[in-house]
Amino acid sequence: MARVLVIGANGQIGKHLVSKIKEKGHDPVAMVRKEEQVSQFKEQDIETVLGDLEKDFSHAFENVDTVVFAAGSGPHTGADKTIIIDQEGAIETIDNTISKGIKNFVMLSGLPVDGPKGTGDGMKPYFYAKYRADQYLQDTDLNYTILRPGLLTDKDETGKVQIVEHDEASSDATSGEVPRADVAEVLAHIVDQNDLKSQIYYLIGGDTDIKDAL
Amino acid sequence: MARVLVIGANGQIGKHLVSKIKEKGHDPVAMVRKEEQVSQFKEQDIETVLGDLEKDFSHAFENVDTVVFAAGSGPHTGADKTIIIDQEGAIETIDNTISKGIKNFVMLSGLPVDGPKGTGDGMKPYFYAKYRADQYLQDTDLNYTILRPGLLTDKDETGKVQIVEHDEASSDATSGEVPRADVAEVLAHIVDQNDLKSQIYYLIGGDTDIKDAL
Repeated sequence: MARVLVIGANGQIGKHLVSKIKEKGHDPVAMVRKEEQVSQFKEQDIETVLGDLEKDFSHAFENVDTVVFAAGSGPHTGADKTIIIDQEGAIETIDNTISKGIKNFVMLSGLPVDGPKGTGDGMKPYFYAKYRADQYLQDTDLNYTILRPGLLTDKDETGKVQIVEHDEASSDATSGEVPRADVAEVLAHIVDQNDLKSQIYYLIGGDTDIKDAL
Repeated sequence: MARVLVIGANGQIGKHLVSKIKEKGHDPVAMVRKEEQVSQFKEQDIETVLGDLEKDFSHAFENVDTVVFAAGSGPHTGADKTIIIDQEGAIETIDNTISKGIKNFVMLSGLPVDGPKGTGDGMKPYFYAKYRADQYLQDTDLNYTILRPGLLTDKDETGKVQIVEHDEASSDATSGEVPRADVAEVLAHIVDQNDLKSQIYYLIGGDTDIKDAL
């Protein structure tokens, strides 16, 4: 059983994720920003910790075995929050993980196969921020997996996906859709397996059971 | 005599800088974004190259000995341009420098001594962008100097400054003012001396002749 800190637990994927981590017999810790976000997790008997990516949140990393970064500034804020949350929040999460001696890191990313450069202007700041955070993680000695899903939807969970590793990824791997619930299940499975060998996976909807796809 | 590519030559510091590099007997190449920015340099018999940090500008790096990054998105654009120009434009400049086999790099930066974290919210995206670009440069094998001036003013050139190295920098070193023309002279002096040993200098106005301050 692992104690798993989920950064961004109140997000759309994060909420699914902490429940799924618990279902698999682990001990999730949901980091949330606001007091009023706590009760929904308490009702599920899930531990919470208050922490804000724009402040010092190093207290959240005590006695943690695995860190999952699933936070995002979302589409309703500007590029200032893209730098501060998606890039710098992720980088500080990595720094905290290292300084607390935690070894295992799972990054929820999201990037075109060809990198941020060819993307449309509107998405460039976001993809660059995610890219720099991923690169920062790749330059560490942490055991990590980076998951880059395609277009996220709110469709029902299917339990089936298609996963391609970084080197064999084609552009199909990021143009496809995938339900957020399936992304959460893939993340929970990665956490549960804990076989973090510096992989980058691209993820879209597909026909393969999640446990067989990885 | 060195051939010196100045990225951001049309900026307030950049304009001073290319003239000063030429005065010191070197061969500046002014990279500018727009055709209408060319003539002011031609009148001074300064070579120009058209290049846009948001596109491929690798053609500008042919037969160059030293690269100076003096570009900035400026205060009139949003944080999206902060990522795309100040961070990613600088990083791509570094990448182009390396891939063309150029060894010498001078970075016009700007950062509080304590880093971006403690700065006010409005400046955070800018300082993080500059910080990540500086870090990227520090992780290369290039010969570099990073110059971090205090508050820039349009006051007359004094020829006198105060420079403190990174390790001995106090917060005075970034709260002080310094005229842009003096910053340009310091950059030109650094280019001319070409003694780039991975230094970080903080720069404010002072009483020491520039040639003695470095």
